[in-house]
Amino acid sequence: MAVPRIVTFTTDFGLDDGFVAQMKGAALGVCPDLRLVDITHNVPAHDIAAGAVRLRMAYAAFPLHTVHVAVVDPGVGTSRRGVVVRTENYYFVAPDNGILSMVLDDEPAGSAHVLEATHLRRPTVSATFEGRDVFAPAAAWIARGISMERFGPEAGELRRLPLPEFRPAIGEPAPVRVLVVDRFGNVTLNLSRRVLESVVGNRPPRLRVETPGGTVESFRGTYGDGNGSEPFMLFNSVNYVELAVREGRAADRLGLSAGDEVRVTVEP
Amino acid sequence: MAVPRIVTFTTDFGLDDGFVAQMKGAALGVCPDLRLVDITHNVPAHDIAAGAVRLRMAYAAFPLHTVHVAVVDPGVGTSRRGVVVRTENYYFVAPDNGILSMVLDDEPAGSAHVLEATHLRRPTVSATFEGRDVFAPAAAWIARGISMERFGPEAGELRRLPLPEFRPAIGEPAPVRVLVVDRFGNVTLNLSRRVLESVVGNRPPRLRVETPGGTVESFRGTYGDGNGSEPFMLFNSVNYVELAVREGRAADRLGLSAGDEVRVTVEP
Amino acid sequence: MAVPRIVTFTTDFGLDDGFVAQMKGAALGVCPDLRLVDITHNVPAHDIAAGAVRLRMAYAAFPLHTVHVAVVDPGVGTSRRGVVVRTENYYFVAPDNGILSMVLDDEPAGSAHVLEATHLRRPTVSATFEGRDVFAPAAAWIARGISMERFGPEAGELRRLPLPEFRPAIGEPAPVRVLVVDRFGNVTLNLSRRVLESVVGNRPPRLRVETPGGTVESFRGTYGDGNGSEPFMLFNSVNYVELAVREGRAADRLGLSAGDEVRVTVEP
Repeated sequence: MAVPRIVTFTTDFGLDDGFVAQMKGAALGVCPDLRLVDITHNVPAHDIAAGAVRLRMAYAAFPLHTVHVAVVDPGVGTSRRGVVVRTENYYFVAPDNGILSMVLDDEPAGSAHVLEATHLRRPTVSATFEGRDVFAPAAAWIARGISMERFGPEAGELRRLPLPEFRPAIGEPAPVRVLVVDRFGNVTLNLSRRVLESVVGNRPPRLRVETPGGTVESFRGTYGDGNGSEPFMLFNSVNYVELAVREGRAADRLGLSAGDEVRVTVEP
Repeated sequence: MAVPRIVTFTTDFGLDDGFVAQMKGAALGVCPDLRLVDITHNVPAHDIAAGAVRLRMAYAAFPLHTVHVAVVDPGVGTSRRGVVVRTENYYFVAPDNGILSMVLDDEPAGSAHVLEATHLRRPTVSATFEGRDVFAPAAAWIARGISMERFGPEAGELRRLPLPEFRPAIGEPAPVRVLVVDRFGNVTLNLSRRVLESVVGNRPPRLRVETPGGTVESFRGTYGDGNGSEPFMLFNSVNYVELAVREGRAADRLGLSAGDEVRVTVEP
Repeated sequence: MAVPRIVTFTTDFGLDDGFVAQMKGAALGVCPDLRLVDITHNVPAHDIAAGAVRLRMAYAAFPLHTVHVAVVDPGVGTSRRGVVVRTENYYFVAPDNGILSMVLDDEPAGSAHVLEATHLRRPTVSATFEGRDVFAPAAAWIARGISMERFGPEAGELRRLPLPEFRPAIGEPAPVRVLVVDRFGNVTLNLSRRVLESVVGNRPPRLRVETPGGTVESFRGTYGDGNGSEPFMLFNSVNYVELAVREGRAADRLGLSAGDEVRVTVEP
């Protein structure tokens, strides 16, 4: 398939140390006319699950066949594998440590190969920075149009995090994880419109969400539809259920942080 | 006019959540060879006036006909309009909520159109993220050379914030707002060289600025000209009056924050 | 030599104020098809030595002949010179205030010229923002292929910071500076593999590093090789000696910050 020369980066490297720049330099060394876009580098250090969430929330806004690099990699230099994965719509380059879990729930892998070919790495590979020496060059080679088989053997099963999406049964309350709290205090739950509709069909959802700060039951169309300071639900911009307060911070109001659990009931 | 394919972004989205990346992905989907530049994403959440200031300080450094996108948008999903504005030198794409106020004081609008055409948006528009679904694609279409009329009807009067620039009268003290405090603690006042010269002509300015931390009266050419720890004034890099201390933080020394008022007298 | 149109930026401007964007706008005004990459803008304000370290850590990951702009410039507007420097592999554009010290230890200057030519600056030069008005345009002109002589006379000796790299003598303990603590708490010392090997040859290093939090003596290959919570050393991704703790923060464990000194002995 035709590949636009766009490479995105999702890491826990922060913006102080120049690590991200080194990855970009290495990518440009392979393919000088890339478009390089940051998704975020503020994933909490070593938090693979948070990286998986951030990538899931942003990847699908990019043109088809964009190459997404994701590096949250506490196991760098050990035996964990690096992989390149092709889904129906995108490429992903990452350590095989679960960081692609949520993306692969959304778009199953078409094929996946292990990053073994040494001639597709930087000439001298450091034991501590495979983001620069292995992953960024691999992404740039993919963007240049190289075939995935060139990197190494098929990867087989990829590692998944224990982050299964909530599959609701009508009328049965169950715990649902808070995936992320955004800058505005909006709270995204691990419950997508797709999954919800597979259970209740296309009708407007009737959910009851119990939180430390009270129960939320009203469902709105957008932030501006909120009623005073009353918390409400909506489908967010990537079609997950989100808790919000009009021009306020739902996370503070409801006492919720990423990783917490709320109790959700799908009403009949 | 010929349009360079440069699009800038000014938002309150922060750098943690990947919202900015989603806007860029959407823009690249319309026009894959854009140059994308961040002005800032650290505008305080929902602070339209602060966004207006940040955009004003940076926009004019870009090549003619650059497309500037500005999204601080607490009213997303409600009835507030989106607009594309052409000035003599640039294009702007933004919600019509006042975020363009200071830019339009500097460069009056040549024409402005409402963003209504649905075929120039993303195919599925979320109710919560018009930055990605409406504004970024519109900017990319402009950069591709589409004419503004294609977006919708003329916008007529644009919304302005109550941020009128201080128009001094000689010898009459008046309150002037602090527009912004930068990373170095320098304090920019809402008083431009252009306005000052319209009153006193081209002569070196003689101002008296009363602040909580004392009165500032000396005017210098640059930061290094300061005298020890004495606060002074200068014209900053975008030709507004700025309070500074040599290698120190004027804001701390004078007790000033963005939004505060000082008392300014133009001496005869 | 052939020059890829890549320009990097290392500054203490932060990400709030749009200063970096103004530099990029000015560069794009000279050469619209540049690739612009941020190294970091979070150098502590006015800390030239920290800027020198950040640039040293990142510059060599970029393609040959990339143009690196570095601006930490407390002396802006005073008589300090601006320079463009060519080394064997790269170009650098910066104030001549020592910010290139560590890079020039690594790659001696081939030639250096003073930035004097006014037609290679922005038409109106502000006294407070040479990053935008002098350095960024100069970098873009270099990327366009202009010869260095066009900027002004040869610069002669360049200013150096008192940051000499530790030259060890076997068995003699000596103080070594902490160059930087990264986001993960890893501690880089001012001691490179190159210098170490010039003293002890290619054998595995045997070092004794005394810190406020204890003595470190084990040398490992990578982070994952660490033993429980025991601090250890390794050569980091730019081949400096680094103190680390497996999935922990060595800086916290050992009580070290950038600028501190530890006591290092090279064992016979």
